[in-house]
Amino acid sequence: MRTDKTPNQETVITRTPLPNSKKIYVSGKIHDIKVPMREIELSDTITNFNGVEKKEKNAPVTVYDTSGPYTDPNVEIDLKKGLPKLRESWILKRDDVEQLNEFSSDYCNERLNNDALDVLRFDHLKKPLKAKKGANVSQMHYAKKGIITPEMEYIAIRENQRIDELKDYNSLWDQHPGESFGANTPTKHITPEFVRDEVAAGRAIIPANINHPEAEPMIIGRNFLVKINTNIGNSAVTSSIEEEVEKAVWSCRWGGDTLMDLSTGKNIHETREWVIRNCPVPVGTVPIYQALEKVNGKAEDLTWEIFRDTLIEQAEQGVDYFTIHAGVLLRYVPLTAKRVTGIVSRGGSIMAKWCLSHHKENFLYTHFEEICEIMKAYDVSFSLGDGLRPGSLADANDKAQFGELETLGELTKIAWKHDIQTMIEGPGHVPMHMIKENMDKQLVECGEAPFYTLGPLTTDIAPGYDHITSGIGAAMIGWYGTAMLCYVTPKEHLGLPNKKDVKDGVITYKIAAHAADLAKGHPGAQYRDNALSKARFEFRWDDQFNLALDPDTAREFHDETLPAEGAKVAHFCSMCGPHFCSMKITQDVRDYAEKNGFDSEEAIEKGMKEQSKLFSDSGKEIYQ
Amino acid sequence: MRTDKTPNQETVITRTPLPNSKKIYVSGKIHDIKVPMREIELSDTITNFNGVEKKEKNAPVTVYDTSGPYTDPNVEIDLKKGLPKLRESWILKRDDVEQLNEFSSDYCNERLNNDALDVLRFDHLKKPLKAKKGANVSQMHYAKKGIITPEMEYIAIRENQRIDELKDYNSLWDQHPGESFGANTPTKHITPEFVRDEVAAGRAIIPANINHPEAEPMIIGRNFLVKINTNIGNSAVTSSIEEEVEKAVWSCRWGGDTLMDLSTGKNIHETREWVIRNCPVPVGTVPIYQALEKVNGKAEDLTWEIFRDTLIEQAEQGVDYFTIHAGVLLRYVPLTAKRVTGIVSRGGSIMAKWCLSHHKENFLYTHFEEICEIMKAYDVSFSLGDGLRPGSLADANDKAQFGELETLGELTKIAWKHDIQTMIEGPGHVPMHMIKENMDKQLVECGEAPFYTLGPLTTDIAPGYDHITSGIGAAMIGWYGTAMLCYVTPKEHLGLPNKKDVKDGVITYKIAAHAADLAKGHPGAQYRDNALSKARFEFRWDDQFNLALDPDTAREFHDETLPAEGAKVAHFCSMCGPHFCSMKITQDVRDYAEKNGFDSEEAIEKGMKEQSKLFSDSGKEIYQ
Repeated sequence: MRTDKTPNQETVITRTPLPNSKKIYVSGKIHDIKVPMREIELSDTITNFNGVEKKEKNAPVTVYDTSGPYTDPNVEIDLKKGLPKLRESWILKRDDVEQLNEFSSDYCNERLNNDALDVLRFDHLKKPLKAKKGANVSQMHYAKKGIITPEMEYIAIRENQRIDELKDYNSLWDQHPGESFGANTPTKHITPEFVRDEVAAGRAIIPANINHPEAEPMIIGRNFLVKINTNIGNSAVTSSIEEEVEKAVWSCRWGGDTLMDLSTGKNIHETREWVIRNCPVPVGTVPIYQALEKVNGKAEDLTWEIFRDTLIEQAEQGVDYFTIHAGVLLRYVPLTAKRVTGIVSRGGSIMAKWCLSHHKENFLYTHFEEICEIMKAYDVSFSLGDGLRPGSLADANDKAQFGELETLGELTKIAWKHDIQTMIEGPGHVPMHMIKENMDKQLVECGEAPFYTLGPLTTDIAPGYDHITSGIGAAMIGWYGTAMLCYVTPKEHLGLPNKKDVKDGVITYKIAAHAADLAKGHPGAQYRDNALSKARFEFRWDDQFNLALDPDTAREFHDETLPAEGAKVAHFCSMCGPHFCSMKITQDVRDYAEKNGFDSEEAIEKGMKEQSKLFSDSGKEIYQ
Repeated sequence: MRTDKTPNQETVITRTPLPNSKKIYVSGKIHDIKVPMREIELSDTITNFNGVEKKEKNAPVTVYDTSGPYTDPNVEIDLKKGLPKLRESWILKRDDVEQLNEFSSDYCNERLNNDALDVLRFDHLKKPLKAKKGANVSQMHYAKKGIITPEMEYIAIRENQRIDELKDYNSLWDQHPGESFGANTPTKHITPEFVRDEVAAGRAIIPANINHPEAEPMIIGRNFLVKINTNIGNSAVTSSIEEEVEKAVWSCRWGGDTLMDLSTGKNIHETREWVIRNCPVPVGTVPIYQALEKVNGKAEDLTWEIFRDTLIEQAEQGVDYFTIHAGVLLRYVPLTAKRVTGIVSRGGSIMAKWCLSHHKENFLYTHFEEICEIMKAYDVSFSLGDGLRPGSLADANDKAQFGELETLGELTKIAWKHDIQTMIEGPGHVPMHMIKENMDKQLVECGEAPFYTLGPLTTDIAPGYDHITSGIGAAMIGWYGTAMLCYVTPKEHLGLPNKKDVKDGVITYKIAAHAADLAKGHPGAQYRDNALSKARFEFRWDDQFNLALDPDTAREFHDETLPAEGAKVAHFCSMCGPHFCSMKITQDVRDYAEKNGFDSEEAIEKGMKEQSKLFSDSGKEIYQ
């Protein structure tokens, strides 16, 4: 049934492949899997100096692709049916899950039985999967048993990125057993065994709810590519379901690795179903937000039972990770009273209010092991929330923040006892010189569980530009070891992001994550930089645009100054004008040096004088 | 004479003060000087909990102001006459300069005698000043003699920023003799003596050509606020004189500390005159660009004589610092041949071409002491250019780059022998983990002369967003010790920046510079962050906007979501909606903790239980 509330995908959903790019699929070795990547085709390098035309092929560049089936024109997309269930057969094959006859959440069933909601409802609802009694279906559980799941091999292939290496990646794996890489180790490769071992050790997580088989497996851990999370969410103020689905597709298109649905408005159960069924990346939520809706916004009315039902409701929809603010302990709350900006995390302030109101310890903390039981029945990962993160530089690295972090460390060990995959959320607002302390302390307290930070923002004085204030901190903390960076849009602190803001946030965070990958020496990282720089140097404008994180903006900016199509192949650029161009001169210098063997200091000293006359007589025209 | 080519200032030049801001002037103690600052007025904090209304005054915040007289409505601006000559009396009082009867440059006189250029010419040309025979008029020369110039006291006042401290800054200076500050030394103050000593030591420069008396003195050195440079310049492709003047005013308005005129097109002599006469900040140029124009773009036709005449031409117009690529030595050039992106500096490639073409050493290097003689006669500062800076990550920190840096170190010592103020230009494209090596090596090789870097860009894959890729590197290298950051706009590598691009570049670099000031522990830096964070926490929306680096954008973004004027005083913000707001809850928590004395762990344990009943009976309404 099409109504005004269900998505109108033709007009709304972005599906065009990125320019000069095609989707390729790399096959697995252990499992029958096909890993999608984006291949960017490049033009030839053509030079013509002194009447000699030379042509050189440029190999296509393959990049990690988060955009899902939307950018593959061969895949039919029907939002009403949801994306193809990529992981369904893998999950069923493990023979440790059962399909339930009905949803386990009271709230879910209440919504299902409400006919008035039919117009909002996802068309092809499926009954949920759950671990068989006594089973644990988490990727960490498999990893600890030594199993390499299809998810793990999928990730290993994906993380390597480079097509030239992937072509014979079997042999490369034999030569280079995976291991933790450091700076300047460009020849290391990611193997399925390495993925498994990192997950088993708790150093990485694979958010992969058995009820979200549509998601393409990805990994969050500091020995892998740095990931970015994007947020969507209608609030009480604005937004529709179809806008939310397109926001998800849109943020994945530009590079979002995971997506948090932070909705606080009406119909969030139904909106979430549409989003998850159509989302090619793992989805996270903060269940306390919805629980609060259920008690009409009164934090003191929250109960463990309502929260528990919300966890189950969302786990059966397929949420891949839950932010749980179980570290906001009663004794930490008053430590925030003298802060400049108190408690700025919504989840943190909800729990603080509850604790003070009841004079009881945080029920998320006291019921933590019960939460673990739910998580492992669906493989939902923990994202242990930093409810007491600083909301201003003045409050950075204080007792409240670090006290909570220590508690998150305790909870991590409990989660691991249950083989629950766990990551830790981090700040916030932190000046540059105090960032590293956060990372170092997190690694120690939380036993190297992946860190997942919001920025941090390195100054408070630039509302409207907080993607940038935080992009600086994000790049740095990514380099220091943070596994995933939660994006910040220009509208942070000011309003709700529109599509342009989402894209600005995503691209800024892709920059931060990639800068961190480069600084950490990730094997495949600099390949793309080098290809783009070569294209730039050779005036292959289209290749430069197509290799960019945002080809559309690069092209548009160029066309503002030099709109003619001819300018994109001309050997000058808009900064210098047609007459003078530094890159052109450099190309001449290079040709000259190469021709004359001036490629070392010794050669220069020896050769310069002999070559002098020859050059004056014949070579000079190359500079005219 | 008004023609179409002379500026139409009413429609073009931006003069409105920033919102809720006024220009204030702080008087000197040693000299009769008035130092302009921007004072941002704040509203009161008004709370109303449990029927008790409280009002609290918020002191105005004073910030460093680069916008010049344009934002003072009491100053009459006439572009045809130029800005008031602030420094003229200071310069004449030193009695070491003479006014020449005519300009010393042949080219300048040729232009003056060309009637066809009358329509372009600045209306009130003044004959140039020059040091009396044998005199050295550089600020470094005075500093070494122990003199505190008005420029130095002006800077000392300016650098302290905080009005509450400035009010009794005399006594503060007595208490806190200025010295190099490190992290976490918030009580240190900048004194005139400290300014003088830093300049004498070569650790800081005051670009202040005696022929640019309109400029407000500022300092570049790593023990002061980190500065940013902006670039303007018409190229062969586009631009008019009036656009260039407004670009200068515009970039100063948003925080540009110095301005480089990188014009390569026609009439650059006349355009520069308009810009300098109306520019309230020091102006830098790359004289080789104009010299190249004079030989019709053929680098091999450049001569020392043409270059020398260009230096004098520009020095007598009032250019405050010259980028001189004297470190591009013949023997370094072929070291770039195997780079991915060869030589990307325009100046570097011009000199490389000249060297190879003539098989001679760079004439800027061989004539360096003659250049020094010109510089000290006008107090033009050196900005020793990094002609061999890397144009891609692949080329970062290579032999060519570091070889040149070593030569710049040699030249610095020669410049200092002549008491010429000197700073050193730096890269470029450098991944994060290789940035610090640049800073460390620069300090060692160049005897702590100020470093002035372009970015560096931390990845090559984001054309269209290079203000961000480079803002990350700029913040970091600023923290490590770089004194001035050369801005990069989003159009870098793609096209010519428009006004929006200039502003985006400036604000991004103000963020980077301020983040660096915070990380370095500059005494006055965090004051503004704290004031803004307090305003944010207290829902004083207008104060939050007005304290922002870009109040207009902050307000505009907020209004997109909640346009009503009422929303700016409402106790909720657009991210959470009217019903639920984390900051509101925190405010409640704070009130509660304060009221109940729960401000330490001990107090909590002791008091929590006793307070329980009282709270349940009476206090609960604050959470409803």
